[in-house]
Amino acid sequence: MISIKQPEGKLGILLPGMGAVTTTLIAGVEMLKKGLTVPYGSVTQMQTIRLGRRDDKKYPIIKDFVPLAKVDEIEFFTWDITDETAYDAAKNAKVLSEADLDKVKPELEKIRPMKAVFDQKHVKRLSGTHVKTGENKMELAEQIRQDIRRCSEGLSRMVMVWCASTEVHREIKEVHSSLEKFEQGLRENNEDILPSMVYAYAAIQEGVPFVNGSPQLTVDIPALIELAKAKNVPIAGKDLKTGQTMIKTIIAPGIKSRMLGMKGWFSTNILGNRDGEVLDDPESLKSKIVSKASVLDHILQKEMYPQLYKDLHHRVNINYYPPKGDDKEGWDHIDLFGWLGYPMQLKINFLCKDSILAAPIVLDLALFIDLAQRAGMIGIQEWLSFYFKSPMCSEKVYPEHDLFIQHKKLKNTLRHMMGEDLITHLGNEYYREE
Amino acid sequence: MISIKQPEGKLGILLPGMGAVTTTLIAGVEMLKKGLTVPYGSVTQMQTIRLGRRDDKKYPIIKDFVPLAKVDEIEFFTWDITDETAYDAAKNAKVLSEADLDKVKPELEKIRPMKAVFDQKHVKRLSGTHVKTGENKMELAEQIRQDIRRCSEGLSRMVMVWCASTEVHREIKEVHSSLEKFEQGLRENNEDILPSMVYAYAAIQEGVPFVNGSPQLTVDIPALIELAKAKNVPIAGKDLKTGQTMIKTIIAPGIKSRMLGMKGWFSTNILGNRDGEVLDDPESLKSKIVSKASVLDHILQKEMYPQLYKDLHHRVNINYYPPKGDDKEGWDHIDLFGWLGYPMQLKINFLCKDSILAAPIVLDLALFIDLAQRAGMIGIQEWLSFYFKSPMCSEKVYPEHDLFIQHKKLKNTLRHMMGEDLITHLGNEYYREE
Amino acid sequence: MISIKQPEGKLGILLPGMGAVTTTLIAGVEMLKKGLTVPYGSVTQMQTIRLGRRDDKKYPIIKDFVPLAKVDEIEFFTWDITDETAYDAAKNAKVLSEADLDKVKPELEKIRPMKAVFDQKHVKRLSGTHVKTGENKMELAEQIRQDIRRCSEGLSRMVMVWCASTEVHREIKEVHSSLEKFEQGLRENNEDILPSMVYAYAAIQEGVPFVNGSPQLTVDIPALIELAKAKNVPIAGKDLKTGQTMIKTIIAPGIKSRMLGMKGWFSTNILGNRDGEVLDDPESLKSKIVSKASVLDHILQKEMYPQLYKDLHHRVNINYYPPKGDDKEGWDHIDLFGWLGYPMQLKINFLCKDSILAAPIVLDLALFIDLAQRAGMIGIQEWLSFYFKSPMCSEKVYPEHDLFIQHKKLKNTLRHMMGEDLITHLGNEYYREE
Amino acid sequence: MISIKQPEGKLGILLPGMGAVTTTLIAGVEMLKKGLTVPYGSVTQMQTIRLGRRDDKKYPIIKDFVPLAKVDEIEFFTWDITDETAYDAAKNAKVLSEADLDKVKPELEKIRPMKAVFDQKHVKRLSGTHVKTGENKMELAEQIRQDIRRCSEGLSRMVMVWCASTEVHREIKEVHSSLEKFEQGLRENNEDILPSMVYAYAAIQEGVPFVNGSPQLTVDIPALIELAKAKNVPIAGKDLKTGQTMIKTIIAPGIKSRMLGMKGWFSTNILGNRDGEVLDDPESLKSKIVSKASVLDHILQKEMYPQLYKDLHHRVNINYYPPKGDDKEGWDHIDLFGWLGYPMQLKINFLCKDSILAAPIVLDLALFIDLAQRAGMIGIQEWLSFYFKSPMCSEKVYPEHDLFIQHKKLKNTLRHMMGEDLITHLGNEYYREE
Repeated sequence: MISIKQPEGKLGILLPGMGAVTTTLIAGVEMLKKGLTVPYGSVTQMQTIRLGRRDDKKYPIIKDFVPLAKVDEIEFFTWDITDETAYDAAKNAKVLSEADLDKVKPELEKIRPMKAVFDQKHVKRLSGTHVKTGENKMELAEQIRQDIRRCSEGLSRMVMVWCASTEVHREIKEVHSSLEKFEQGLRENNEDILPSMVYAYAAIQEGVPFVNGSPQLTVDIPALIELAKAKNVPIAGKDLKTGQTMIKTIIAPGIKSRMLGMKGWFSTNILGNRDGEVLDDPESLKSKIVSKASVLDHILQKEMYPQLYKDLHHRVNINYYPPKGDDKEGWDHIDLFGWLGYPMQLKINFLCKDSILAAPIVLDLALFIDLAQRAGMIGIQEWLSFYFKSPMCSEKVYPEHDLFIQHKKLKNTLRHMMGEDLITHLGNEYYREE
Repeated sequence: MISIKQPEGKLGILLPGMGAVTTTLIAGVEMLKKGLTVPYGSVTQMQTIRLGRRDDKKYPIIKDFVPLAKVDEIEFFTWDITDETAYDAAKNAKVLSEADLDKVKPELEKIRPMKAVFDQKHVKRLSGTHVKTGENKMELAEQIRQDIRRCSEGLSRMVMVWCASTEVHREIKEVHSSLEKFEQGLRENNEDILPSMVYAYAAIQEGVPFVNGSPQLTVDIPALIELAKAKNVPIAGKDLKTGQTMIKTIIAPGIKSRMLGMKGWFSTNILGNRDGEVLDDPESLKSKIVSKASVLDHILQKEMYPQLYKDLHHRVNINYYPPKGDDKEGWDHIDLFGWLGYPMQLKINFLCKDSILAAPIVLDLALFIDLAQRAGMIGIQEWLSFYFKSPMCSEKVYPEHDLFIQHKKLKNTLRHMMGEDLITHLGNEYYREE
Repeated sequence: MISIKQPEGKLGILLPGMGAVTTTLIAGVEMLKKGLTVPYGSVTQMQTIRLGRRDDKKYPIIKDFVPLAKVDEIEFFTWDITDETAYDAAKNAKVLSEADLDKVKPELEKIRPMKAVFDQKHVKRLSGTHVKTGENKMELAEQIRQDIRRCSEGLSRMVMVWCASTEVHREIKEVHSSLEKFEQGLRENNEDILPSMVYAYAAIQEGVPFVNGSPQLTVDIPALIELAKAKNVPIAGKDLKTGQTMIKTIIAPGIKSRMLGMKGWFSTNILGNRDGEVLDDPESLKSKIVSKASVLDHILQKEMYPQLYKDLHHRVNINYYPPKGDDKEGWDHIDLFGWLGYPMQLKINFLCKDSILAAPIVLDLALFIDLAQRAGMIGIQEWLSFYFKSPMCSEKVYPEHDLFIQHKKLKNTLRHMMGEDLITHLGNEYYREE
Repeated sequence: MISIKQPEGKLGILLPGMGAVTTTLIAGVEMLKKGLTVPYGSVTQMQTIRLGRRDDKKYPIIKDFVPLAKVDEIEFFTWDITDETAYDAAKNAKVLSEADLDKVKPELEKIRPMKAVFDQKHVKRLSGTHVKTGENKMELAEQIRQDIRRCSEGLSRMVMVWCASTEVHREIKEVHSSLEKFEQGLRENNEDILPSMVYAYAAIQEGVPFVNGSPQLTVDIPALIELAKAKNVPIAGKDLKTGQTMIKTIIAPGIKSRMLGMKGWFSTNILGNRDGEVLDDPESLKSKIVSKASVLDHILQKEMYPQLYKDLHHRVNINYYPPKGDDKEGWDHIDLFGWLGYPMQLKINFLCKDSILAAPIVLDLALFIDLAQRAGMIGIQEWLSFYFKSPMCSEKVYPEHDLFIQHKKLKNTLRHMMGEDLITHLGNEYYREE
């Protein structure tokens, strides 16, 4: 059993980006505080965890099993390139009905974003005026650190979750390879340091855990992993697993568990919100496609099952289609084969809502990474892979994409923290005495 | 580590029913013996199993890890109500191409079914002339036992897998409640003793493990469980998990892992083979629907998550639609809800081939239940739940329908048999030393 | 050119049944009167009609071409088994948002239904208390006639459109075969006279055109056709063509125009409103299925194209599935074949809203049948087939189900009424002079 | 009634491009000659045409109504960049089963292509060696003319149908604007003269009717229209209407006939044959997309119905996806709205076979354009629009895309040719005398 500090006092959740996901999260949490809703979609708030034998029937809810911050103790702080209240931003995002927003209008109107660090080079389809200025990126980082310190008043702890738009794709370069080079890069305004990295650097320097909800690298670079260890800060990422990729990581392990072969997986999806507009830029799209593409390779393990998966033709399309609004729709066409190579097809059509899927995940991640910090778990939190399209992990291993292994890992980690037996599903005890 | 007898000599696989599944299985195994195909869809023949840490990279194939019978050592024996060779039966079933069948024509032509125990009362849409006659069901059981003993010549071991049509639905009654009453029922020609039960009784009496691939109760009655324990015989069932239900047990655990709510799941499927024709009879259909219906209840655990699943409207339709032939097509429409109750939809269309999905499962089950017998594991084999729509289990627990828990259970059981560490996916060892 | 009386004064639209369709229609028309919406879905209000050559570019809107009643001159009157205002009925129907309903709340609150003629024998899933009583059906008809006369005050003309629930299936019997026998049946309370027939009888006796929007026979019986001719009244029906059948009559003529063969058409649909609940009763369902089934036969003309369509396996399922509410969802799976018999598949998924599709059709029908009356067109109005699943027609011909032929017939009838050239699409005039 | 020469003697069908479509056509026609199949998908061979009143019941098959060439009198000639027999080309195309091909193996082996005019600049993904060489394009045209004259031996008449790959997109330029400039361009090797234009020029010069089955302009340029009129030759095009666009021109007119609005239509399709590979080149893709895009605009008439269609977001994707082979699969997602603007969705999934849909169309076009020539109809044949994605028409009018108007135009043109009454579907004659 790991020693865990109790979650006393208030938890500040710091959110760069106050768009659809952020406002949907905040509105929902404020409704929860008022008892107006049920935390659907949140694993921390609703999921039970089995302890002991199946016939012991001990199934506490996760929030009652591990010492998490309470929803009532959460306060939100945001940065954005547009200067409007969370209420106005939520209305523009068109995810929640006006009837729902009006229930928490006063709470939402109180929240105004701080000026953002932003560079149109990195998100080509957006532009904004509510932005910080500074000589170089180190100065901008310093301004964020001051913001964080100002927020901290009256709080016991903070976490930061990147909920802003997808930035352009960048490979890992020299400047990302060590903390020293990274800090030099900040001072020299290095092009390959993305705004999200400036936030992550600032957060970690202030001892604040950082989670990356978008596909670009951000905290998944040696320099910031090094800093996180030095500062005893847990980090996690990247790219919230919602929509089509979530379904993919459900279906693919199932197909593979039965040793069915796969010749092709064609995925296309249409979406009409700001996220879609940003991805209409080929460079941002690339970040996303890179994040989505490797999922199947890792789950299906081509190299281990060449007869089944070596010819897999995997293609992912993302299309900006304004009629959808915040709705998102995915089609998947999967060409399978079974016994003696006979072909079969599986087709999936998912009509989902991006922010509705993402908001409770951000809540869970904020609560879990705060728990990790109080439990003294530092650096990469692989046990949170469950929430990510492109999970960060140790260099010794490959990322685990199978949603069910991720889920098992999450729950056994919680059991392990609390000194409970890990579940193996062997279950021969019910038959031994027969 | 459990002590397991080595699989020396030949294994006889006894198959009541020589229709699409049986002939597809036999043709495939004969092609495998000749090196003409790859055992796609068979977990025993193709799947690897991780041993130790992820970075140990030890991943033997299951057939190389546990002492299974080799494919080359298998011989088939069948019963059917039509007297034709396996080659002719396969041609009529129209699952495999004639080009494929011709590759193993001599092998298939050698196989002729023994006379079946059959009663049109129990499968209303079929009729047959190649049937046994006897004063009562005990006499018929005796004839099956003689068949089994005749088959055993030259074999080292046998297993029986029921691959015949779905019989009419029967509830558990007095006559099924103990071995004594059951044997009396056999002698008195009790109406509630189905032909499949006569086969199961005969097999177990002869010490032959029995697997039920269809939805009716068959071996899942106290009388035969009692007999299996008395005779040290492993048994398993029921209803091979293929097609729509397989997909259902993949999707539902994924949805639930994320605490997404569900208002409705509408499933319809169309199929055109003998199976479909049999299910066009309302009484046989009932067996099937009962078997399919409880899947979601067990996976979603309504009573544990009333806010998410108590209003679930689950409906399953099966339609006989001749244009499909042996192809089977399922549509699923799922009404989900997430954060703040906002609705989403998931739609699935599966174009599959029933016998192509079922054949490798029958092979795996035959090999695993033979393994169980050699390992001294008797009675219900819950660890084989992975293969069934309606898995048999101890009365102390509920059946486990989640495909991924079933898969974990299967693999950890194999590790346990061989004395290997069970896998928990905790995986904190890769981070501890960092 | 036909002589047509001008539409002076107010038009009363009399609607038996004040459920989802009726209230959606009324709310929409009241919004139109206030200029709050556009008459989407209404052919009379929005569709243009080409006159003369393509390069003449004369395309008036239908309402400006033929002398129709104006939307502003419409008044509504209803009957229902529940005594509540149209506003409350609309809220219960859950088709329109409360925000929309509130825009016409005063208008809707003014409308209260008259007591209905109702018999639970004919609509088994409903029950109501706001019903007329009388010694026999002739007395009930007399009460309806009095209602109609009361409504007529201040009106210039009236039409009646049956918008109530589907009644049980009844074949044509002796009692329907002549007016004399029918009237005797009314007096003798004959079981085979449905409530909808009582309304139709009363309307026609009062000289009011009658349209049947549901699948049961109602006005499609010799007795009432005879009465309509005697009273110079136009009649039309039956079963409003919305949803899956509308799509079917779009797709099937297209497939046939290309001489593609068809082996099967499997249709299933799920719906959750009162309509669905009513159809959960097998007898009402039968009315519906009979109405839907013949559509394909008539379009594809099996007897003319046996090589293409004689083996067509057509199956229609309707499922009551409460999670859908007023939404309706259809799946169609079509097995096609082309050149040399090679197979293809077409799959259609239609997420529609029943009342949204039906309401503008009721408006069009009311306006067109009023036009027909003023134009002296009496008896069956086959040119309105465009709007029906099961169109009434002369005994000399078969019903025309092809939506595009129906559309042509409708528009050429309007051109014919106004003395314009009929359109043939020959169009060789643009090339002759070249 | 138009005077039409009888179709005496043999008809040569000249086909540039001997790929999937051409070989599927030839194999099918040869099977027809042997009585081995039924001409599914061919309107000329199977469709009936109504003459007179509906109750006259006169419905001859088109081939028995107008004087078409008989299938037995057809001979095929091809050009291709690969020198192999039609049998080998058909085997490589993988459209027809080997069992089917073997039935006409001798006939197919006799057909070898002539050397093609080809330029990789115009079809970037292909390369070939079996190509003509010449100083300039006029010389190449001359060589084609010689080929044509050689083919003509023993034939009575010839037609040419372009069945080769899609070429790169080219706008109409100066060089296409008159015959004089075009011939100068041929001599000067002008870059904007595509190989298909060289074939078309040669054919028309030889008095051979020309049909363009691909999307690039080819014969749809002023220069060649001028030549066709001068030489009394009928021409038609362009882009055979198969697959997704065929379905689009079925659905869209149906939606519009009901005045339902449309916010978006998203089309994506996956295909794996040579056609797909060619379209993987952005320039060829552009030809195709331009051809597909305008379909909806013309059918929906945005300018006439701005309230319904002005915001339509139409997007077409084409994806090369090798697992499909010659199969082609389209998804369409359509966002509709009806009464009061309430939204609905229609989703279509079409699993089709490109060449199976195209082959009978090529047959029909060849027979009809030969008929047109014998009937003295010269220049653009708009009445054949039924077969094209992007139909050629007079400058005075817009192209007609509605499949049902096209169909009506085709059949009324045939009636007109034979002096029969045109059908208007007015049909009031069945009611007048009542």
